[in-house]
Amino acid sequence: MAEVGIIMGSTSDLPVMQDAADILKEFGISYEIDIVSAHRTPEKMFDYAKNAHKRGIKVIIAGAGGAAHLPGMTASLTPLPVIGVPVKSANSIDGWDSILSILQMPNGIPVATVALNAAKNAGILAAKIIGSSNAEVQGKMEAYMESLKAKVLEGAEKVKTQG
Amino acid sequence: MAEVGIIMGSTSDLPVMQDAADILKEFGISYEIDIVSAHRTPEKMFDYAKNAHKRGIKVIIAGAGGAAHLPGMTASLTPLPVIGVPVKSANSIDGWDSILSILQMPNGIPVATVALNAAKNAGILAAKIIGSSNAEVQGKMEAYMESLKAKVLEGAEKVKTQG
Amino acid sequence: MAEVGIIMGSTSDLPVMQDAADILKEFGISYEIDIVSAHRTPEKMFDYAKNAHKRGIKVIIAGAGGAAHLPGMTASLTPLPVIGVPVKSANSIDGWDSILSILQMPNGIPVATVALNAAKNAGILAAKIIGSSNAEVQGKMEAYMESLKAKVLEGAEKVKTQG
Amino acid sequence: MAEVGIIMGSTSDLPVMQDAADILKEFGISYEIDIVSAHRTPEKMFDYAKNAHKRGIKVIIAGAGGAAHLPGMTASLTPLPVIGVPVKSANSIDGWDSILSILQMPNGIPVATVALNAAKNAGILAAKIIGSSNAEVQGKMEAYMESLKAKVLEGAEKVKTQG
Amino acid sequence: MAEVGIIMGSTSDLPVMQDAADILKEFGISYEIDIVSAHRTPEKMFDYAKNAHKRGIKVIIAGAGGAAHLPGMTASLTPLPVIGVPVKSANSIDGWDSILSILQMPNGIPVATVALNAAKNAGILAAKIIGSSNAEVQGKMEAYMESLKAKVLEGAEKVKTQG
Amino acid sequence: MAEVGIIMGSTSDLPVMQDAADILKEFGISYEIDIVSAHRTPEKMFDYAKNAHKRGIKVIIAGAGGAAHLPGMTASLTPLPVIGVPVKSANSIDGWDSILSILQMPNGIPVATVALNAAKNAGILAAKIIGSSNAEVQGKMEAYMESLKAKVLEGAEKVKTQG
Amino acid sequence: MAEVGIIMGSTSDLPVMQDAADILKEFGISYEIDIVSAHRTPEKMFDYAKNAHKRGIKVIIAGAGGAAHLPGMTASLTPLPVIGVPVKSANSIDGWDSILSILQMPNGIPVATVALNAAKNAGILAAKIIGSSNAEVQGKMEAYMESLKAKVLEGAEKVKTQG
Amino acid sequence: MAEVGIIMGSTSDLPVMQDAADILKEFGISYEIDIVSAHRTPEKMFDYAKNAHKRGIKVIIAGAGGAAHLPGMTASLTPLPVIGVPVKSANSIDGWDSILSILQMPNGIPVATVALNAAKNAGILAAKIIGSSNAEVQGKMEAYMESLKAKVLEGAEKVKTQG
Repeated sequence: MAEVGIIMGSTSDLPVMQDAADILKEFGISYEIDIVSAHRTPEKMFDYAKNAHKRGIKVIIAGAGGAAHLPGMTASLTPLPVIGVPVKSANSIDGWDSILSILQMPNGIPVATVALNAAKNAGILAAKIIGSSNAEVQGKMEAYMESLKAKVLEGAEKVKTQG
Repeated sequence: MAEVGIIMGSTSDLPVMQDAADILKEFGISYEIDIVSAHRTPEKMFDYAKNAHKRGIKVIIAGAGGAAHLPGMTASLTPLPVIGVPVKSANSIDGWDSILSILQMPNGIPVATVALNAAKNAGILAAKIIGSSNAEVQGKMEAYMESLKAKVLEGAEKVKTQG
Repeated sequence: MAEVGIIMGSTSDLPVMQDAADILKEFGISYEIDIVSAHRTPEKMFDYAKNAHKRGIKVIIAGAGGAAHLPGMTASLTPLPVIGVPVKSANSIDGWDSILSILQMPNGIPVATVALNAAKNAGILAAKIIGSSNAEVQGKMEAYMESLKAKVLEGAEKVKTQG
Repeated sequence: MAEVGIIMGSTSDLPVMQDAADILKEFGISYEIDIVSAHRTPEKMFDYAKNAHKRGIKVIIAGAGGAAHLPGMTASLTPLPVIGVPVKSANSIDGWDSILSILQMPNGIPVATVALNAAKNAGILAAKIIGSSNAEVQGKMEAYMESLKAKVLEGAEKVKTQG
Repeated sequence: MAEVGIIMGSTSDLPVMQDAADILKEFGISYEIDIVSAHRTPEKMFDYAKNAHKRGIKVIIAGAGGAAHLPGMTASLTPLPVIGVPVKSANSIDGWDSILSILQMPNGIPVATVALNAAKNAGILAAKIIGSSNAEVQGKMEAYMESLKAKVLEGAEKVKTQG
Repeated sequence: MAEVGIIMGSTSDLPVMQDAADILKEFGISYEIDIVSAHRTPEKMFDYAKNAHKRGIKVIIAGAGGAAHLPGMTASLTPLPVIGVPVKSANSIDGWDSILSILQMPNGIPVATVALNAAKNAGILAAKIIGSSNAEVQGKMEAYMESLKAKVLEGAEKVKTQG
Repeated sequence: MAEVGIIMGSTSDLPVMQDAADILKEFGISYEIDIVSAHRTPEKMFDYAKNAHKRGIKVIIAGAGGAAHLPGMTASLTPLPVIGVPVKSANSIDGWDSILSILQMPNGIPVATVALNAAKNAGILAAKIIGSSNAEVQGKMEAYMESLKAKVLEGAEKVKTQG
Repeated sequence: MAEVGIIMGSTSDLPVMQDAADILKEFGISYEIDIVSAHRTPEKMFDYAKNAHKRGIKVIIAGAGGAAHLPGMTASLTPLPVIGVPVKSANSIDGWDSILSILQMPNGIPVATVALNAAKNAGILAAKIIGSSNAEVQGKMEAYMESLKAKVLEGAEKVKTQG
């Protein structure tokens, strides 16, 4: 049973969205991936969003580009937190369209929006959410953040040595 | 039986959207008005969009603000042409959010987008669409366009006289 | 006799605008293509726009880039619905210039604007407009939308199998 | 003991941020409010962010305007999920500065960004996060979403009756 | 016989465009004012633009808001230099629409664009153009520029005295 | 003796600005080209701008990128009309910086701004300005505009034949 | 003898720029205020910028709106550090024009740009610059930063008490 | 002992930030380079910023991309002037995010922002700041500015000869 559901509007979003899956795997959090298009498979989106929490999903990550309606529509149909990933698709206007379509949700229906193409951060945010009621995952998050620090310090050392 | 369905996400959009109804009345085209929120009444939106053409509706005008999903979601559920009106709501980012959320639809699901707050133009566009297969309405459109011209020429005359 | 007139400001717009023709062919809707520049052949534009409906044209699709005046000027001269395609031309400012020049028409003269470079969607919108008074075309639209769904579901299946 | 920590950069953000507290009260979720400025009280921010999870806080809501660093800096110091509220402050450039300063976080350090001034949505998102491991809160969320629906349907009824 | 033709799309542009007339009067340059709408009186625009140079007009100043096509369309129909004034109309998107619709003209058809609402500068530019072949007007321009300097120096003196 | 002075901030602007010279040559209008940097050779700019009209120059074309001050500063020092060409330089923010630095001049000091990188149009505008008091040049302009039309019509013919 | 020179393009900028003077007075740093317009008094600007360091000025603060050339032009004429204050003037396009005209200086000629209308911060930055070689001023800066902290903590206390 | 501290959020910023070091070397000003990430090594950032002035550093140059918090956070912790370099990182939204995150600092905590990717200008600004209390460095700055002029004049000569 998956804890995180990763959905996206098109298979062309997969190269970006795969990062969410990869980081969740690192945290040992189970996930599922599916293609769910708000505009081309609206009925599937309804079913997915209405039933995810009943199947044990705790967080939904939804990525889409252009006039990106999948994250917001999903959020309107589920009591679960939905993380939105604005994808910079072809013919996007520099990503502004997907960012604003996901971020500027009306009162009542929030989407937890992350940076443009930042599926990795969506996965980390999902882990932080799960960690907020799971001490083991939260502990892994603290370790992960320490590892980020270590990498930067190591890079800093190299710069000093080479400089 | 209404030929044009005017829907909007919230009663707060009514002052803007009323212009669509008013101009349709001028053209003698029947219409209906309803509040259909993509995010708060998604089931009603599904029903509305899936059945509109069965009830004789020929064109749907949908207005919404912020992350405006109503026009695009409606378009994904109906074979009818959908006209989208970006509404500049409170906390909108100068209207860019509603414009891009409505305009930048993916391939397969177009929305006929008009200018910010331009519900009147949405009504005129609906009349042009109906007129494309109805000589009487098209004749009224030609007369309407002549009347616009007459008003400008009259204004020009006043400017010259006063100048 | 063509039902849809596809015009554009320059032969350099053809690679984008061809998509409109291709999808209309799929729907079995007749069309004609012409180069009509608002700025370099204004008289031809006048003639084209004033007479299109007399020749049986039901919808005009007009594409242009930069300070894109062709869709709006055409709309001011015809009782027909005009669909505007903002083309991202060289030296365009990320497409904002063509979008705003086409979208932000004044009251009285609407242009049905589609997404940046979305000539395919312009063709589909034309088919939806024709279908609003033609049951056969509307039926084809329903089938087309089902085929979009099928393709997404098929892609979803592959993702699940590979994942 | 509070479950949600609401912090903001300045008392001038309080009128916006109060909405987060109000909606949490509706959900019966305990919260605390504090002024923590990334730029003027960086040491307090460090202490707050490093210790919040040890005090039982499960979600942090951080609001700030202009070059808004509080949400991102807090996120860099805590394993908890941080929800960022871009506040449209005086001399803000239409809110773009606070949105981008909060949203565009680098890989490793996500902030769950909500719409401009959308502190109410930040509160609802916090409730959804808590509800993902708390059936009672999740049940309240489902009821809340039903109540939104009911209000829209009621408004729709009035529009129909008056129209 | 007027040397400068001032035209605008609507009587609502007159409060902005009057500044062009006022400064031309200061320079003793003759002008005429007319309302010429590209979208509502396209035929009048054609006539005006095609014949202006035959009536002795040397420069055309054209102001318009939103999807502002009047300056560019006029420029496409006349061998005269056309100065475009982007007017920030109601429902304009902060003026970006009128600026880009006037500025971003394709190769072959330039419009001399001035700042948003800067009809006064349009008048001064017209005077500079006329002055380029008229020593008397050029002399007045030099005197005008000296007077600007004198006013600033006077203001500077006051600031120093009060400071 | 040159009638048009073409200046630019850097030799790196020459590939763009050469278009102005080429089209002026087509019109048989004499010109000179010089590198004049507002920021690196401010004294040369002063000399150039203060004396151009004394040497017989009738129009100055000034191109610059980024925080482009050359056109506006030149305009502040000469009674001549100055045409500004926003150049999209490396590290430019999509050209917005050069456009706004040239276009948004304060009252009293206009710059005739053309489209991004549109040096060709700057040359044509200079020819239109010179033509406003020179019947021969104005006649050439009419012929040039006819030639643009002919090229479009020829292209249209090819599209029809190939279609 | 003044250590900081505060200049601005127009007396209308004084209400914004006065904040720079007020904070410098708090730090006990001497200053002078003058109106120096890049576009209307270019000669005065030249004199001011070329001689400021000879008169003992250590930092120049320059404020301007629209196509704001004063900070950059001053920087091109002085070896002193120049702090630029983008002023949001009337008819400014939301301040973007002044920000980009000041910020995006070419290589070789930096301007230390502060936030929109942030003359107070320009004064504080000047104090930090002077403090970098003046232990007394640097000490005051540390005290000032402590006082900011104290005010925030006091505000935080009130919020907690009232909450 | 270094006079200028150059820090950046990631080793990926080094290719841009190296320009600051290179120009400082030209001016004979000592510097140090370090990687200090606001988000991944917040404690190191605190230490660095709190102690830089005690180690003799006079100016800090901080570069970062995206939601760039390093310059502003550093400025909040040091009495030294901080120069911010917005870096256009991958997935940046055309650089707007880093510019606004650095520029739009609240009252009390200025950052001296330079153009996008303009690390060279950051180095020159640091030299101007040091030169404001060091006649030798100021003299080098005057010579440097003369050398810029000479290069432009040389380029101008070539253009004239080739033209």
